[in-house]
Amino acid sequence: MKKVLVINGPNLNMLGVREPEIYGKMTLEDINSLILKKAEELNIQVKFYQSNIEGEIVNSIHSAYNNFDGIIINPGAYSHYSGAIYDALKAVGLPCAEVHISNVFAREEHRHNMVTAGASKGVISGFGAKSYILALEGLFDE
Amino acid sequence: MKKVLVINGPNLNMLGVREPEIYGKMTLEDINSLILKKAEELNIQVKFYQSNIEGEIVNSIHSAYNNFDGIIINPGAYSHYSGAIYDALKAVGLPCAEVHISNVFAREEHRHNMVTAGASKGVISGFGAKSYILALEGLFDE
Amino acid sequence: MKKVLVINGPNLNMLGVREPEIYGKMTLEDINSLILKKAEELNIQVKFYQSNIEGEIVNSIHSAYNNFDGIIINPGAYSHYSGAIYDALKAVGLPCAEVHISNVFAREEHRHNMVTAGASKGVISGFGAKSYILALEGLFDE
Amino acid sequence: MKKVLVINGPNLNMLGVREPEIYGKMTLEDINSLILKKAEELNIQVKFYQSNIEGEIVNSIHSAYNNFDGIIINPGAYSHYSGAIYDALKAVGLPCAEVHISNVFAREEHRHNMVTAGASKGVISGFGAKSYILALEGLFDE
Amino acid sequence: MKKVLVINGPNLNMLGVREPEIYGKMTLEDINSLILKKAEELNIQVKFYQSNIEGEIVNSIHSAYNNFDGIIINPGAYSHYSGAIYDALKAVGLPCAEVHISNVFAREEHRHNMVTAGASKGVISGFGAKSYILALEGLFDE
Amino acid sequence: MKKVLVINGPNLNMLGVREPEIYGKMTLEDINSLILKKAEELNIQVKFYQSNIEGEIVNSIHSAYNNFDGIIINPGAYSHYSGAIYDALKAVGLPCAEVHISNVFAREEHRHNMVTAGASKGVISGFGAKSYILALEGLFDE
Amino acid sequence: MKKVLVINGPNLNMLGVREPEIYGKMTLEDINSLILKKAEELNIQVKFYQSNIEGEIVNSIHSAYNNFDGIIINPGAYSHYSGAIYDALKAVGLPCAEVHISNVFAREEHRHNMVTAGASKGVISGFGAKSYILALEGLFDE
Amino acid sequence: MKKVLVINGPNLNMLGVREPEIYGKMTLEDINSLILKKAEELNIQVKFYQSNIEGEIVNSIHSAYNNFDGIIINPGAYSHYSGAIYDALKAVGLPCAEVHISNVFAREEHRHNMVTAGASKGVISGFGAKSYILALEGLFDE
Amino acid sequence: MKKVLVINGPNLNMLGVREPEIYGKMTLEDINSLILKKAEELNIQVKFYQSNIEGEIVNSIHSAYNNFDGIIINPGAYSHYSGAIYDALKAVGLPCAEVHISNVFAREEHRHNMVTAGASKGVISGFGAKSYILALEGLFDE
Amino acid sequence: MKKVLVINGPNLNMLGVREPEIYGKMTLEDINSLILKKAEELNIQVKFYQSNIEGEIVNSIHSAYNNFDGIIINPGAYSHYSGAIYDALKAVGLPCAEVHISNVFAREEHRHNMVTAGASKGVISGFGAKSYILALEGLFDE
Amino acid sequence: MKKVLVINGPNLNMLGVREPEIYGKMTLEDINSLILKKAEELNIQVKFYQSNIEGEIVNSIHSAYNNFDGIIINPGAYSHYSGAIYDALKAVGLPCAEVHISNVFAREEHRHNMVTAGASKGVISGFGAKSYILALEGLFDE
Amino acid sequence: MKKVLVINGPNLNMLGVREPEIYGKMTLEDINSLILKKAEELNIQVKFYQSNIEGEIVNSIHSAYNNFDGIIINPGAYSHYSGAIYDALKAVGLPCAEVHISNVFAREEHRHNMVTAGASKGVISGFGAKSYILALEGLFDE
Repeated sequence: MKKVLVINGPNLNMLGVREPEIYGKMTLEDINSLILKKAEELNIQVKFYQSNIEGEIVNSIHSAYNNFDGIIINPGAYSHYSGAIYDALKAVGLPCAEVHISNVFAREEHRHNMVTAGASKGVISGFGAKSYILALEGLFDE
Repeated sequence: MKKVLVINGPNLNMLGVREPEIYGKMTLEDINSLILKKAEELNIQVKFYQSNIEGEIVNSIHSAYNNFDGIIINPGAYSHYSGAIYDALKAVGLPCAEVHISNVFAREEHRHNMVTAGASKGVISGFGAKSYILALEGLFDE
Repeated sequence: MKKVLVINGPNLNMLGVREPEIYGKMTLEDINSLILKKAEELNIQVKFYQSNIEGEIVNSIHSAYNNFDGIIINPGAYSHYSGAIYDALKAVGLPCAEVHISNVFAREEHRHNMVTAGASKGVISGFGAKSYILALEGLFDE
Repeated sequence: MKKVLVINGPNLNMLGVREPEIYGKMTLEDINSLILKKAEELNIQVKFYQSNIEGEIVNSIHSAYNNFDGIIINPGAYSHYSGAIYDALKAVGLPCAEVHISNVFAREEHRHNMVTAGASKGVISGFGAKSYILALEGLFDE
Repeated sequence: MKKVLVINGPNLNMLGVREPEIYGKMTLEDINSLILKKAEELNIQVKFYQSNIEGEIVNSIHSAYNNFDGIIINPGAYSHYSGAIYDALKAVGLPCAEVHISNVFAREEHRHNMVTAGASKGVISGFGAKSYILALEGLFDE
Repeated sequence: MKKVLVINGPNLNMLGVREPEIYGKMTLEDINSLILKKAEELNIQVKFYQSNIEGEIVNSIHSAYNNFDGIIINPGAYSHYSGAIYDALKAVGLPCAEVHISNVFAREEHRHNMVTAGASKGVISGFGAKSYILALEGLFDE
Repeated sequence: MKKVLVINGPNLNMLGVREPEIYGKMTLEDINSLILKKAEELNIQVKFYQSNIEGEIVNSIHSAYNNFDGIIINPGAYSHYSGAIYDALKAVGLPCAEVHISNVFAREEHRHNMVTAGASKGVISGFGAKSYILALEGLFDE
Repeated sequence: MKKVLVINGPNLNMLGVREPEIYGKMTLEDINSLILKKAEELNIQVKFYQSNIEGEIVNSIHSAYNNFDGIIINPGAYSHYSGAIYDALKAVGLPCAEVHISNVFAREEHRHNMVTAGASKGVISGFGAKSYILALEGLFDE
Repeated sequence: MKKVLVINGPNLNMLGVREPEIYGKMTLEDINSLILKKAEELNIQVKFYQSNIEGEIVNSIHSAYNNFDGIIINPGAYSHYSGAIYDALKAVGLPCAEVHISNVFAREEHRHNMVTAGASKGVISGFGAKSYILALEGLFDE
Repeated sequence: MKKVLVINGPNLNMLGVREPEIYGKMTLEDINSLILKKAEELNIQVKFYQSNIEGEIVNSIHSAYNNFDGIIINPGAYSHYSGAIYDALKAVGLPCAEVHISNVFAREEHRHNMVTAGASKGVISGFGAKSYILALEGLFDE
Repeated sequence: MKKVLVINGPNLNMLGVREPEIYGKMTLEDINSLILKKAEELNIQVKFYQSNIEGEIVNSIHSAYNNFDGIIINPGAYSHYSGAIYDALKAVGLPCAEVHISNVFAREEHRHNMVTAGASKGVISGFGAKSYILALEGLFDE
Repeated sequence: MKKVLVINGPNLNMLGVREPEIYGKMTLEDINSLILKKAEELNIQVKFYQSNIEGEIVNSIHSAYNNFDGIIINPGAYSHYSGAIYDALKAVGLPCAEVHISNVFAREEHRHNMVTAGASKGVISGFGAKSYILALEGLFDE
């Protein structure tokens, strides 16, 4: 049974409250429930982590080393400038899927600069809560 | 029953032959078979189109207007400069998922410039043939 | 009697359907009728051509050589990156007017980059269907 | 009967003298006569204003508020850096046509930066004195 | 009793008329009344000047030399390109507060380029008419 | 009675020690006393928070949701790159004033890049400790 | 006996007509005759292809796979923006020589951006019709 | 006897007062006296003009047409952005020397952008009041 | 006896595990032992601190104020964007040596942007674990 | 009998030793022998010069004036920044072919900046030692 | 009696031969004669040096230290990239005048980048041979 | 016994004289004595070379091939633009340490562009004369 760490970055704890016309009305708990359900289906064990602190996200990525088989990460705004998260993902070397709720390429120019994405296996952006579900399905090669 | 047009852009007809260390060993036909299987599961009708010609891809997108419920597109290199494809997707106004086999953000700098992506609902990049499958699942809101 | 070739580029066949709040509700046929009426007034013979394919537009420009006295072209999105159309207009050396329905300078940043415009006699942008009529009037020096 | 204010910016008072190989041999007075003739045809009342001073052009634009139905402006070199003229045109909110005698896109790079153009309904560039005539015809929707 | 010169730049004479959703409904006279009231409270003498002409604003700044103890300036669009106003403020060397009615950092990219601001003691942007009141309070160190 | 959260970012706990020729000799406690005094005058309740950790500032902004009526924030160096703080301010949607002790526009080039400022109502920069006082006065519309 | 596919891109069918002061007075047929003569000398079999359509050039490159031993290509203006042609050359993996009639580095700035050249073995630019002859000689290592 | 118009732009009327560590302690009148003395020596008739208003400088340049044999201009800050002055100098076509008191290349980055200089015969920068004297000597070819 | 604080930033706790072909096989503990040994030789007292959190590194730098005589810091990826660490080093004003294990100038472009380095006395990059030893030797002037 | 000067720039004396996977295993002497052989065939007299010093290369180019009929130059790294060599080639005005052993467009970004190439008749890059042979054949028009 | 070293950089030994439509028909010897004559008038002793080698120019500048009272330098193309010459002029700290025969600001874009000019007292560009004469007059303050 | 070549580039022969507030008061001879002393301690044989000529530095690097075990180089200003020195260091393939006396990252922007540094094992910048000593210690792995 594979183990996946699901990491959410800054402001994702505000989902439901935060600009619902962009991010939708589901809370992070709602999304986590959906993920759990899909994980059971796929026989994957998931653990959730959320932090607004860049370095704690780095710590969390490190904690996956030897303890998890893959990572799903929504780095929020850190996607666009965090070399530290990029380095952390490279350091642990696990398969990772970067996830975004909104389509970052249809938004402000500064959200087109993808700093962390190059350290992941792939990126899924714009499918709302479903982005996480698709990531779970896509993370491992059969 | 929903209908989806799957459009593949330049050089994707060379899959299997083309730099297999980047794009994998499956041919486009192999990928289409996988898509068909998943489409049946999801009760979606799919049609496939491939062209190396930017304007024919524009034509194909136009043909979806009033005839399809959604589009999955891998614009290949045109992703990075085709304003014409961006405009075509905006013109027909259908839900669209942009798909890439490799993770474009882990490759050459010029592949980080996402010109067409802003006209889609979302983007999936880096999951190999599975990128198409995930796109099919993510394309429509339940 | 002068002969003018009127060339429309990508997505202009979708006029009427395509984002009508930007491009208006007239179809390309409606516009062509207006042009025909004005052409009769001015005693000019016009021929219409539309293609979504960059290279076919190049072909069409070449076809004007020795056969037409001037060109009116709306290169659509190709205006912003087609060196090939720029070169074609330079190659045939006919007076040309570049036309845009919307005011490209009041829109997204990437539409401010005018690649083909330097090969024309002049540019008319933002007057809706009338842009073509004005082009017809302005194309030849009396 | 509609009223249009025709504003000419810096160095246009030197027409005829100024680099005739670029700007032609007509003086501003010659052009104004042509405009007057066309205006009569179109049953439009025109008033002419010329200044080399950016802020006086701003004043002139303000003066059109409640007194004119539209503006034709050739901002000369101010086209390429005057945020003040851009703001003035936005402030009065009248239909405006920006006019250039030469095709700015076929000239030096710094003339490709169109700062004021986004505040107009449209732009006409490169048709010599005729650029003003076309602007007069295009300014109002029938 | 301290003396302050309040200078308003281009298009601020159009307040009330000009894009009220951005700049509010108060006229410049309304704002001046508020400033006067606050100035009396603070025992400061104020004089008002408005011009749309960059060089007249430079003249006005020069006139403050030896005649005023401080300057409050809203350079309007000149904020973003006027090296001449920057140099004038440096030349007279008086404490100056640059004021903007709207928050320029929440608006178009070209309004983020702050050319004159470096010559002032400080900048206040986004508090509507109150920006001037705050400037008056902040201009002098106690 | 309105409630305002005053947030100070990195290195502001070093005020008094830190480059006093730029930031002055007052400590953060001295500034807080001044704010408190003014807050009493204005019948506003204030709470102070300082952190050097970007994500803790994000947390603190979140904590204001439903608990405060407005925010005054000096993001220090994070002003120039923190997309996370920008997003947090947008997420809670409270009126916010961004404050800087020194005039950032008169300093090094990299301090001219205002990343967080667009998420605030307004910005006050360069008035020393008084910047906070002015922010308190300007935060709410009467 | 080696087989070489000679591909000419947009506007090269206009040679002789097109700006002869830059491109010379020979037609494409004249050049092809020269190539044929040299090919016989070198005991190489050549086939000629010309298209103004980017995607047809891609098709043509694909057609060389398993059928030719090398490619000589003059991508015309596509040299400066066609990621699709770059990808096609990489996909087939044959030795390729990119050819230009004029010296692109002595011309307009936009012709200095060499997008396709990195996918070839080498580049020859500026030797007129002879550029093709030299390419034929240089294509294969002895 | 040759006639030269000496034009001084913005803030040069403040010489002596304005940042004397950069611009020296001489007033503009002092400099003009020096110029007059040298002009007599060289048997040149000079006329002086100063304005802070960009468009008045344009007017002054126009006034030289047919009335003067050459121009000496210190455009002050307008050197770095005035396309209008550049165009005016080109329009009158007289030999012109651009003069700067300080060495602009040893100062702030934005003073290295020389917009007007290309319209002059030459540039003299950094020799204090003597810059004008040298310009007078260099303006005409013997 | 001098006291030095040795600060390691993000992902340096992963040394030995993290991309050993770039960072070598020593763990951070191994490096610290080497530093301790050298410190004894030089009669310097050292204390070690590691954090992945930018703001905790800022805190740690502050803690050195009045308690240490110098700082050795490897800011990891924060070197390339942390204005907060730059400001903290400036605030405490102690001699500091910035250290990198790999030669950042021989790696990806984004690692060439040295944001924090200007706040140190000097930089040592590329000597593996020895970089720290050299920093210890170079930190103080004899 | 025509005379050609063959100039090799910096580090080309290290051929054979220098990164043989890029530059091949032939020494400069080996290449010169090949050139000599071809020159005899073509009835051209060649002279060889190599220097690592930019200014000596300039001297060598000058020496060709009136003494040679053409130049073949491999400016090595100077290709990418030597304005002096560009100016020297322009000064002597002889037909020149710029040669590179490797395909500079398939290498690091900084090797894509072609500073000297615009002063030559043409450029040949990527054909190994053969690049020189092709240059010799292409240098003169028959 | 003051002593001045006159240094000419790359390609200036080719004056008379080199692009005479830009640089004129005088040789460097002709110019030196003019300088000598003026130097006698001004009671200045001059010595001439010319080299095409950047580092020899650096040597020559060093040689002026303690031996000359000032330097006149025309760095030719090195003006636009030689940090070494900039540093050398700063190192010796003598008054220096940078001279250009043509007006570099009216020429190609790459000649607008003035790297060495900031190390001189002033710059004179565009007055032909006279540029040197003016430099001699302007070099020393009376 | 290892042999190290110590190369100093342009203007380092002026140490002691040259801007001593930046580069210190030691001459190059003083520094060489310090290096010699340390070299004896480390049982390393050193040879010194200084030149202001870029190409002679290239020659000197070549001379180290087969004759030295490592290189210490202070390329002075050439660090920021010499592709030739970068290529030379790559060509000989010896371990190299790049050294700077001052901290280049705390100085002018143009000194942050590190062109040669990527060809060295590592870089030491800012430790004055000690930079060389540290380089000697760090050059070889034990």
